[in-house]
Parts: sequence; structure tokens; C-alpha cells
Amino acid sequence: MPVNLSAPVAARLLPVAGVSLGVAEANIKRADRKDLLVIKLDEGATVAGVFTTNRFCAAPVTVAKAHLAAGKGIRALLVNTGNANAGTGEQGMAAARTTCAELAKLLGCASEQVLPYSTGVIMEPLPVGKIVAGMPQAIANLKADNWFDAAHAIMTTDIVAKAVSKQVQIGGKTVTVTGISKGSGMIHPNMATMLGYIATDAAIAQPLLQQMVSEAANRSFNCITVDGDTSTNDALMLIATGRSGVQIAESERAAMQTAVSEVATVLAQAIVRDGEGATKFITIKVEGGKDEAECKNIGYAIAHSPLVKTAFFASDPNLGRILAAIGYAGVGDLDVGKLKLYLDDVLVAENGGRAPSYQEEDGQRVMKQSDIAIRVVLNRGKVNATLWTCDFSYDYVKINASYRS
Amino acid sequence: MPVNLSAPVAARLLPVAGVSLGVAEANIKRADRKDLLVIKLDEGATVAGVFTTNRFCAAPVTVAKAHLAAGKGIRALLVNTGNANAGTGEQGMAAARTTCAELAKLLGCASEQVLPYSTGVIMEPLPVGKIVAGMPQAIANLKADNWFDAAHAIMTTDIVAKAVSKQVQIGGKTVTVTGISKGSGMIHPNMATMLGYIATDAAIAQPLLQQMVSEAANRSFNCITVDGDTSTNDALMLIATGRSGVQIAESERAAMQTAVSEVATVLAQAIVRDGEGATKFITIKVEGGKDEAECKNIGYAIAHSPLVKTAFFASDPNLGRILAAIGYAGVGDLDVGKLKLYLDDVLVAENGGRAPSYQEEDGQRVMKQSDIAIRVVLNRGKVNATLWTCDFSYDYVKINASYRS
Repeated sequence: MPVNLSAPVAARLLPVAGVSLGVAEANIKRADRKDLLVIKLDEGATVAGVFTTNRFCAAPVTVAKAHLAAGKGIRALLVNTGNANAGTGEQGMAAARTTCAELAKLLGCASEQVLPYSTGVIMEPLPVGKIVAGMPQAIANLKADNWFDAAHAIMTTDIVAKAVSKQVQIGGKTVTVTGISKGSGMIHPNMATMLGYIATDAAIAQPLLQQMVSEAANRSFNCITVDGDTSTNDALMLIATGRSGVQIAESERAAMQTAVSEVATVLAQAIVRDGEGATKFITIKVEGGKDEAECKNIGYAIAHSPLVKTAFFASDPNLGRILAAIGYAGVGDLDVGKLKLYLDDVLVAENGGRAPSYQEEDGQRVMKQSDIAIRVVLNRGKVNATLWTCDFSYDYVKINASYRS
Repeated sequence: MPVNLSAPVAARLLPVAGVSLGVAEANIKRADRKDLLVIKLDEGATVAGVFTTNRFCAAPVTVAKAHLAAGKGIRALLVNTGNANAGTGEQGMAAARTTCAELAKLLGCASEQVLPYSTGVIMEPLPVGKIVAGMPQAIANLKADNWFDAAHAIMTTDIVAKAVSKQVQIGGKTVTVTGISKGSGMIHPNMATMLGYIATDAAIAQPLLQQMVSEAANRSFNCITVDGDTSTNDALMLIATGRSGVQIAESERAAMQTAVSEVATVLAQAIVRDGEGATKFITIKVEGGKDEAECKNIGYAIAHSPLVKTAFFASDPNLGRILAAIGYAGVGDLDVGKLKLYLDDVLVAENGGRAPSYQEEDGQRVMKQSDIAIRVVLNRGKVNATLWTCDFSYDYVKINASYRS
């Protein structure tokens, strides 16, 4: 079950003027589930995104990047679940282009104005016919107040839908930011993770929008891991419709960035809280490093260690496993005698070994919580980094041993 | 249960002249199990080793390196299970030195002529008293024909003991090589893994012996992974007593290296076959790379992917997960359209997608085997690398969620 993660409430998800969403049941992998989403944008919206760095990136990732680069103004995003269209070669590229062309025909725009996204099983041919057949149903369903259904339509192994809205005052006017995301396994972002769509009614020029989505990803989706597997299909998209009449220039940039990053962080953390088989949500803070890279390397070494993750699953304060992970994180000149390890407020290790004040029952108390913070203080610099991960349970194995069946 | 791994047969383990071994039940963590091993060497033996690169390396690793460097001639190795003496700070260093000094007193040698090794739980104080109290029992048990008991005395979560002997003819004389190892979890070597002790009755000078053990580790213990966790206590030691009268010079080097590397490979593969919770033994061959680093990076990306490992556990040919792992292995200029993926003799993927000839039932047939080879042909260079790993099962989680209890 997801860790301290509530399902979104439809009434709290705010429409973003200039964006309408429609869902359909296209029977892509299974019947009786929403598996197709069309996000339609009014003319004039700007769109930016960050994508997976996986060399086996999916066909829709390649096509979406090309269509974004064409610069014709994006009018629609098309998302299907049930099939990733990854590891599908030239045939997959043709399939992704066909779905864009077919949706463009129905919406009366150019093929290059449609961005495609797919998520699901890898190395299976995309069922183009089913997707095209589902498009009219999704278009008939288009409405501004539809983020709740949209969040459900992009779920795969997710148990809980992920969606959040936020409003900020900029220049005396209200700006709305609403986002959805999906993801639960194959989560180790590198530039972005899984699928995330965030829209705002602020007006933001494309170059600035690109900086903002990169910055938001770097502080949110790029700070989470479930299993260390970087997906072939990751994308985080940021849409700015301008319909609030608020133009974001340099002076308002910080406020806008904060709003976007906060929405992205909620969506990213929701993916970890809903991590496959997760029973614990673990925040890893690495402080006092020389640079961000070494802080993140140490954080990810802890976050990816199956031994650390299974100990958290068992609520077993076998905390030497965290020291071992710190030790193999590749920081060659690390002085282990100078670092301190905390579990929440409990000092566990210092001077290269167990802290004299540490009591097993204190570690045990923290380990039993469902939200736990690991804090590593390196005492070798001034840089900090925070990552989020989950534990590793029987259910992770169960889910991934039976995903395709 | 271990994958196609038989327990060693005592009668097939050949004594190495100049080496005697003694075991004891020292009650270090549990009663009624052999947990202490003394390996005694006749005067004149040379010893070389490779050790973990973990920055949180255990106190005995630091002490063993220092004693080796002292160059006084090693007379004994002392191994305990049940406690790793890692993450134990200055107190741990003092404990390791004390055990060396106490054994040296009993054997009539200098403290620097004893090398200490520990394996077990991290961040717990070493029970020096129990170890010292167990030494007389181990010394009373010293005999040349004792490798079988020695292999059992160094086991922790291992289900099967690991030991092998080999004889080669060099210069018309018989040279014996016998080795033992232990390890099952926290297996991702970096210079060496877990504990391995190999002895030969050939005479090999220390500089050459060091090259040989490094070469053997690089082709065996450094090519395996169970869970990607690099232990704090890894060591592989190579002992040459010279008692066969065969002096290994440059001309005999290749034959001797082959014998040592073969013993090391059997011992290393045995660790994977006995990997925690393992149900499948997986050989990963990466061929046609530009250099060894990229071949190993791709191999380890596959070997560490929890998604790949759980698919193998389930015998589910969800082979797109292997493509995804290849794609995120960090080979930036990889042309995925040029590579081929095979499962045993079955061509699975080419031209960036599923091979037209691939049939799901062929993949299914191979996945059901207990020994499986994954072959990735990169077609971008002439270098190959082979790694060995195992699958990821419920039992891995079970074992590691309850290791300390």
C-alpha cells in the first residue's frame, strides 16, 4: 500500500485556462480501464520538457523531441498506457508518427503540433489501431475540469493517482499550476522520470520555460529512486497557456519557479510513496559535501542498496549497511572518521563507528515509522542534496515477477 | 536453494604442503557452529592479496594490509565469522590488533606475521574475548587435510561450502592449488569479494604473486554480483608455500596463472550460485565493445537491475527490461540499432527492436532453465567481458529482512 499518500480529490484540482483533457478506454492492454489521454492546448501555449537519457529511448520520446524542435506550436499531447513503444525499432517510430498524424487530422492541426507519449510493456508493437479507434471517445470527453480522470488514465502499476494544484499571486494576479504524474517501478530518473505533465496559465516564453522545467526536474523527479532502473520513456512536460494574463519575466521568475518546483516535488514524492511494494518512505539528506555530485552519489548508493532497503522493510536497525553503502559510493578521498550518520534525530555513527550515545531501541523506534529520514553529515564542504526513496519488500518482487501476466 | 552447486567432497580437497588449518567453535554469534579458522603457514611462504575498495573498510582489512606491507613473512591467517569488525572505529582497530597479538603469542611468531579477517554483522564491537578463548581449540585442530572443515568455518549466510582443488604439471612436477571462499550477499566486488583463500605449493616470489592474485581476481571475483553491494570486508588471498619444489618463473607463469584463475573462478561462481535467494545462475557475455569498461558497465547494468532479476526469477521473458538496462548503462554514444541480444542461442533483439525471428515460446523455454546465458553483441569494437549473477527472489528479501535476528 502507498505510504502516507492520499488519493487526489477531484474538487481540489483546478482547471488551467487554455488546457482541456479527454480520456478514453481504448482496450490497449486490458478492457474496462482508462488508458488513453488527450491534452488539448489552445493556440499560443508554450511547451517545454525533459526526457529520459536512456539510449534505448522509446520511439515516442524521439518523436516528441523532434516535434518540439520543429517549433510550430504544440496543440495536443497524446498519452497511452499499456504499451511503451520502446525497443520497437523503425516500426515503432512509424507507429508513433501515425498516432500523431491521426490525432492531428481529428483536431485540425499539423502532425508536428502533436506530442506522443507511451508507457507500459517494452518491446511489444504499439497497437496503433486501438489507439486511433479510441481517439474520438477521448476528444468527445475533452473538458478543462478533467485533471482527475486524466491522472487515472495514465496509471500503470500505480495504486494511487497523482495530481496536485497550487495557486500563487504574481503581479497582483492569481496564477494556477496543476500537474499529474504516473510511475511506480523502473524509477531512477536521469533528466526526468516516468510521465509528468504540469500546466500553468501564466505566459512563459519557451527558452525560460525550458529552464524552469529543467530546474524543477532537477529538484524533484531527478531526486527520487525506487529501483534504480531508468525508464526508456520518461518525460516531464511543462505547459504555459498564458491565459491568466500574467507574463513571467525575470523579476517574477523566482516565484513562478517555486510554484512549479513545488508541484513537481509533490508529484515526484507521490511516485516514491506509491513505489512498487513500498511500505516506508525514506528521505535521504546528504549534507556538508564538496559538490552536488558526491552528495547525490552517496545518497543514491544508500537509496539503491538492496540490503539497506530490505533492512528498512524489516524495521531492522541494521545500520552498518548504510555505512557500507556510503563507503562504496565512489568518493575516493572520503574520510569516514569525520562523518556523522543520523536516523531522524538519533545520532547513529561518528568517528568511524557506532556513536557511544546510540541505543538500539532508539534506532528501532525510528525504523518502525513509515516516514523516516536518513541524514549523513560529511563535514567536508558546504553542499547539501536531498533524495527520496522507498524500501524493498516481498511485494516488489511479487509485482515485478508477475507484471506481464 | 543454490543453483546447480554441489557441496564439496572432503576427499577431493587436496592438502597443500606447508599449510595447515584448524577450526573452532568460538560462539561468536551463535553456539554450535564452527566460526573460527586459523591457517598456519610454514616459514618461507609468500602471501599476496587484494582487498575491498570500500572506504568504510573493516579494521581487519586495514590491519592485514599493514601487516602484509611490513614484509616480515606471514605465518598465520585468522578468520572469524559472526562479526565483521567494520564501522567500529579506533576500538575496532585495537580489537583486530589484539587478536593478531594473541595468536602470535600462541604460535611463537610476531604480531605482524598474522593477518586478520572478519565477516558478519557490521557496526557491532568484535567479541575479542570469545575469539581469543577459541584459539587453543583451533590450534589443537591444525592439520594439512582440513580444507573441508575450513570451508565450513568461514560460512555466514552461505548454504553450501565453497572449496576446490586442482593439480597441474609444471616443469615435470605436480603443483597443487586448493582454495576456499565464502559469500552469498553484499556481493559486488571491486578489487576482490568477500573472503577467498587460495594456496599452492609452488614457489612464487611476492611481486609475481601479487600480480597473479590481481589477475585472478579480475577474471573471477571481480566479475560477479549478487546485489550490487560492495562489502566492507572483502579479501582474496593467495599463498605460495614453495613446498612442491617448483619455482615459478616467467616461463611457467601462464600455466600457473591459469590454474590459480580457474580455482578462483570456480570459487567466485560458487558464490553466485549460492547467492541469497538465488534460483537461477545467469552468465552475461558482452561482446564487441570498444573497451572492457563499457562491456562491464553494460553487463553490470543488466546484472544489477531489480526488474531484470525479478523477471528471471519469474521465468518471464520480459526481455525489454534487458534493453532498458543496456540503454542506461552510461555508454553515451551507443548505437542501439547495431546491437544484438541473445538468450542462450535465441536471437531476441536486433535493429533496435524485437527480432522478426523471435518467438515468445523460445524465450520462455530458455527462461525456465536454471543456467541461462545473456549475450549482448555490441558490434562496435573487439573487446569482450563475462560476468555472472543470479536472479532476485522473495527469499532474497526474506533472508535480508531477517539477517540479524
